[in-house]
Amino acid sequence: MEKTILTNMIMIEDGNGNVLVQNRMKTWKGLAFPGGKVEKGESFVEAAIREVKEETGLDIKNLQLCGVKQFQTKLDERYIVFLYRTTVYEGTIVSSEEGEVKWLPLDQLKEANTVEDFDQMLKVFLNKDTSELYYTGNTTTVI
Amino acid sequence: MEKTILTNMIMIEDGNGNVLVQNRMKTWKGLAFPGGKVEKGESFVEAAIREVKEETGLDIKNLQLCGVKQFQTKLDERYIVFLYRTTVYEGTIVSSEEGEVKWLPLDQLKEANTVEDFDQMLKVFLNKDTSELYYTGNTTTVI
Repeated sequence: MEKTILTNMIMIEDGNGNVLVQNRMKTWKGLAFPGGKVEKGESFVEAAIREVKEETGLDIKNLQLCGVKQFQTKLDERYIVFLYRTTVYEGTIVSSEEGEVKWLPLDQLKEANTVEDFDQMLKVFLNKDTSELYYTGNTTTVI
Repeated sequence: MEKTILTNMIMIEDGNGNVLVQNRMKTWKGLAFPGGKVEKGESFVEAAIREVKEETGLDIKNLQLCGVKQFQTKLDERYIVFLYRTTVYEGTIVSSEEGEVKWLPLDQLKEANTVEDFDQMLKVFLNKDTSELYYTGNTTTVI
């Protein structure tokens, strides 16, 4: 048995080269994809759908799990971020207090003011043959 | 924070329509894919590579995360099975005490004597747009 903290982050693509980014205003500031915490006992996919609805106003489905980001916290818990992507959504974007959301070309995102490690996370989102970003101390490995 | 039990299962494909199956001899008897438990703090992908080596003799890489199976245990822990697939392997198959391993055509597996829920798990392995099999009581949902 391990103590874990379960979270998610979701890349929504519009099919024209744009992705939906959130300008995070709280901790871990900068551009990232929307996401949040999984509630106790909640389905991982349903948690991702709920967070996207709350933070962007969009209803998403057909989520693909791309991989995970993970590290051990100072309390020796395993912190897991489930990384999903989808191209299927309905609705109009509405920002939340978590941060403004907007569409941005994916190739601009790579040079934008993103949150720490975002370039590493993008590898896991985009590369079919990598499924994980993990930390050993301060060192990151993408595998 | 949630208490979790972290495990994995890996579908290895030979590129000619066959998958590597294990005839599980211990609990949860029947045909399934190889896999096992993630050790404390271990990378999920590295745990899957290690389990496949131990149970089949093969060295695998380029793992794709297809989704998860999950349920709450009687001790109210979240039991998670990470489901991976790969077509990249080296070596010769060697069975372990966990059960005999052999190549089997994927379309025969669907009618074989597989472990409980294996047909549901296969949907998550094979369908790009589904990422999870979860339980609510005795009811399964693939999403």
